[in-house]
Amino acid sequence: MQTIAFLGLGTMGSPMAVNLCKAGFTVYGWNRSAGKAEPLLAAGGRSAASVPDAVRDADVVITMLPDAPQVEEIAYGPDGVLAHARRGSLLIDMSTIAPHSSITLARVAAEHGIRVLDAPVAGGEAGAVDGILSIMVGGDTGDVEEARPVFEALGRTVTHCGTHGLGQTVKAANQLVLAINMQACAEAVVFLEKAGVDLEAALDVLSGGLAGSNVLTRKKPNFLRRDYTPSFTMGLHHKDMGIVVDTARAVGVALPLGGIAAQLVASAVARGEAGLDHSALLRGVELLSGYDRG
Amino acid sequence: MQTIAFLGLGTMGSPMAVNLCKAGFTVYGWNRSAGKAEPLLAAGGRSAASVPDAVRDADVVITMLPDAPQVEEIAYGPDGVLAHARRGSLLIDMSTIAPHSSITLARVAAEHGIRVLDAPVAGGEAGAVDGILSIMVGGDTGDVEEARPVFEALGRTVTHCGTHGLGQTVKAANQLVLAINMQACAEAVVFLEKAGVDLEAALDVLSGGLAGSNVLTRKKPNFLRRDYTPSFTMGLHHKDMGIVVDTARAVGVALPLGGIAAQLVASAVARGEAGLDHSALLRGVELLSGYDRG
Amino acid sequence: MQTIAFLGLGTMGSPMAVNLCKAGFTVYGWNRSAGKAEPLLAAGGRSAASVPDAVRDADVVITMLPDAPQVEEIAYGPDGVLAHARRGSLLIDMSTIAPHSSITLARVAAEHGIRVLDAPVAGGEAGAVDGILSIMVGGDTGDVEEARPVFEALGRTVTHCGTHGLGQTVKAANQLVLAINMQACAEAVVFLEKAGVDLEAALDVLSGGLAGSNVLTRKKPNFLRRDYTPSFTMGLHHKDMGIVVDTARAVGVALPLGGIAAQLVASAVARGEAGLDHSALLRGVELLSGYDRG
Amino acid sequence: MQTIAFLGLGTMGSPMAVNLCKAGFTVYGWNRSAGKAEPLLAAGGRSAASVPDAVRDADVVITMLPDAPQVEEIAYGPDGVLAHARRGSLLIDMSTIAPHSSITLARVAAEHGIRVLDAPVAGGEAGAVDGILSIMVGGDTGDVEEARPVFEALGRTVTHCGTHGLGQTVKAANQLVLAINMQACAEAVVFLEKAGVDLEAALDVLSGGLAGSNVLTRKKPNFLRRDYTPSFTMGLHHKDMGIVVDTARAVGVALPLGGIAAQLVASAVARGEAGLDHSALLRGVELLSGYDRG
Repeated sequence: MQTIAFLGLGTMGSPMAVNLCKAGFTVYGWNRSAGKAEPLLAAGGRSAASVPDAVRDADVVITMLPDAPQVEEIAYGPDGVLAHARRGSLLIDMSTIAPHSSITLARVAAEHGIRVLDAPVAGGEAGAVDGILSIMVGGDTGDVEEARPVFEALGRTVTHCGTHGLGQTVKAANQLVLAINMQACAEAVVFLEKAGVDLEAALDVLSGGLAGSNVLTRKKPNFLRRDYTPSFTMGLHHKDMGIVVDTARAVGVALPLGGIAAQLVASAVARGEAGLDHSALLRGVELLSGYDRG
Repeated sequence: MQTIAFLGLGTMGSPMAVNLCKAGFTVYGWNRSAGKAEPLLAAGGRSAASVPDAVRDADVVITMLPDAPQVEEIAYGPDGVLAHARRGSLLIDMSTIAPHSSITLARVAAEHGIRVLDAPVAGGEAGAVDGILSIMVGGDTGDVEEARPVFEALGRTVTHCGTHGLGQTVKAANQLVLAINMQACAEAVVFLEKAGVDLEAALDVLSGGLAGSNVLTRKKPNFLRRDYTPSFTMGLHHKDMGIVVDTARAVGVALPLGGIAAQLVASAVARGEAGLDHSALLRGVELLSGYDRG
Repeated sequence: MQTIAFLGLGTMGSPMAVNLCKAGFTVYGWNRSAGKAEPLLAAGGRSAASVPDAVRDADVVITMLPDAPQVEEIAYGPDGVLAHARRGSLLIDMSTIAPHSSITLARVAAEHGIRVLDAPVAGGEAGAVDGILSIMVGGDTGDVEEARPVFEALGRTVTHCGTHGLGQTVKAANQLVLAINMQACAEAVVFLEKAGVDLEAALDVLSGGLAGSNVLTRKKPNFLRRDYTPSFTMGLHHKDMGIVVDTARAVGVALPLGGIAAQLVASAVARGEAGLDHSALLRGVELLSGYDRG
Repeated sequence: MQTIAFLGLGTMGSPMAVNLCKAGFTVYGWNRSAGKAEPLLAAGGRSAASVPDAVRDADVVITMLPDAPQVEEIAYGPDGVLAHARRGSLLIDMSTIAPHSSITLARVAAEHGIRVLDAPVAGGEAGAVDGILSIMVGGDTGDVEEARPVFEALGRTVTHCGTHGLGQTVKAANQLVLAINMQACAEAVVFLEKAGVDLEAALDVLSGGLAGSNVLTRKKPNFLRRDYTPSFTMGLHHKDMGIVVDTARAVGVALPLGGIAAQLVASAVARGEAGLDHSALLRGVELLSGYDRG
């Protein structure tokens, strides 16, 4: 378990690969677009010219990609992981994709003698940099144990949620609760301001009681200053709400608030705000309420 | 500011009156139904036979009642506070009622030479017992300062939210965010369980990230055991959602999630669950999803 | 039953009073603001200088007013109907107000020896002019029969819905279904246009099947031309949705779509569109979808 | 244009194939499960043993299947339409599937020299039997004109909605408006009954005004008798709402009511009611409102 191929050196993947280097793993990094390997090289890692080069000698292959189509291309393509990784190696997909895509990946990979874990993360860019991600893992127990040293280099809590796809399911539940609570806080902000309450004082009160949440505490500056510099973009949350709604459909769960929260996130994207922080759900409430704080 | 009339010795009011005694105030307690004054008497307080008896010599009158009709009867009735309290005394209504009711009360009381603060609380029975309530105050700054020793005997944080009614407005916002987040967690619980995830592990993961909240942490036992012993009843939350929806209407705010959350709380009450803890919103999601954990 | 006091000569009331004249009744009209009696006078009616003057000799008093506060002032005030109408006369309130307000009015009026019917209407200004309103009546059967000649001068269908307040209840249900279906059509319009479909052809297809409705047929020109010249204003529908939500609460019914439709109507009003036709719900969907047809 | 292969002889397809026979076309019918060809044979049609047998000599191939996976298997499979139909023939898919599936089918078929129209229908089994379906067509104008004699044997109105996929888009909009209006009526039914109104009288009143719709008129017996004998099943409407939500996502439209209506239809399916008529949305409102008419 010493050699790792890390595919996808974006905002999340790059610092994760660096942390693996620092923990003593030999890391071969690859990214579709060039020029992303600098931090990894500076940390002592290596840059691979292609997926086959990256994965050929790896014990573990990690993918950290935007969505299922990218994962599927990298996994199934003629120059992909399944065609070139060693039999017996372990593919850990840390992307956030639909549970059914993870299940399919595990099944197909098994035909190539490759084991798979789905291991999406929470904690954002800061959590990736600091190595304190929360990791939700689906797959076989033995594989999770084998991967534990890898996970411990990346995160603080590692939870084995169940079989293949259930790591993704927990991640989806996380995004569901998060979107709804974000929207709840956004509705409260406009309610409070239009009523003439001092917002900062009010948010502090709410934070102190049962209504308190990490959204209220951590997103308070965004709400107060209408600062939507992204730590997690509306566009990615939109992608995730698609997974939530589809999975609820597959599982047979009715999500009255989830269904409409998905529409409100979609509204932000339709209005051109995919690149803003997801706390910009506040802008939708302002719009609906004819409110311009000026 | 040494003599206090405390009207309403229920689940919340009784321990609050006791705490005022302990803090050195002379407290005359009154309750509509008899037999509620024991704890107050044991703490050195006194029991008044009527509202006029309770308020006649009081510097401060505190009301802690279920809803606006009770407050209005105690305030405006022929045997009520405005008719019998001293001119210059201070009426602190700590009930949760509609902001417009608080505004009207302040206006009418002023005609009787009585000042009013609206000061609803969060923190529940435990907060009342431990004297660590969160208190949201609306009214004049001078009156808030004058009442501060009283508030400090009852709570840990005292926030002056603005003019008359704005304490109630903040309380309403609190109940809005709380109901929505409770429902969000309920949707996640059924989503996770129907998908086959171990619920406790998953809730711990969610608690660790941006989706984490006091609801997730404190209501986890309720969700895990389907234990709906009330710490705050669905019926009271239903009353509060009525205030939320009405106030949003008055203020001119659109609450897409708030509007439907209010319907889901109303559904629980319509199904006969007014006496359960508000975490029983979970039962509604189970019902909608045809899910019986057994 | 030959002499009628008609109180409220607005957009609806004026042509209704005229139709009563044409049917042979002696009509005394009154309106709060002056200058509204011309059509009635031209039709042979009379103008009363005050409510007492209007009602003193009337067999039947009809009120057609914007909302409950106006009805209550005209009914209960010192110069109002109950103080000045003859014992034994019949008060028909054709305003759209909350069922509980109608129930209270019937109870209080009975103490004055005056019988009451609630009889809100559907059909709009055109229906009032043409005397083809749909009339929903709540109250005692004998009173409904006694009033039938009056109703037949005003409308085409007269439905006795049950006891006091149930006329208003049916009207509320009407406004509920109407708001939701209007919003449904608005969502379909933006869905179709953004997808590139010819709107007029598509609306014609929808009209031909089970999705077809009077909204689709009658509001098609509004949707096609974005013409929001009011036949029924958003502001009035907003008032009515308040009645719907409050009544559902009182009755114990959960309205998932009704709850959010009420918020969307409120949104339009908050955005300053109270004066537009209620088909302007389309503007809200455009806004949420970032869509400007130009 | 005289020889037609008709693939899918289910509830809808069988009477449609019969009507094509009656109109003078030579029809080769095929169905996956045997024993469905009797009505077609009785009408003078022929039964094909396989898809290749059915399509080999056909000028027009019609598919009438439950969903996209069935269409795709019949179209793309080794024994499928594209592999065995004549170059230059016209494939008319009258199934209700996602617009993007129709677009893909048209593109792939073009590579085989086969032209495609998407032509979903409204009007149900009765419309199929009577030959009065409403047909929404997407594709090239010339192909629509060529197919017109076929369509005229099947339906009363034929609307060319635009390019490939736009027939499906209009069908999706139809299902969107229909589901929402059905739910609106269901909410009104429980609202009216719990308030004590005579339901039949009230529904008649609503039907007469702007709230009136084909749902109110045609589904009145279902609502009155709680008769959920299916004319269109909840399960199929659930499939269609999936198409609606996915297409809205692709097009960039926010559907606040559509999003929650989809959840309520999903709820019915999760509760085991996929086989009931879609008017059984009423059961969900009863459940949420704790209402049992008995």
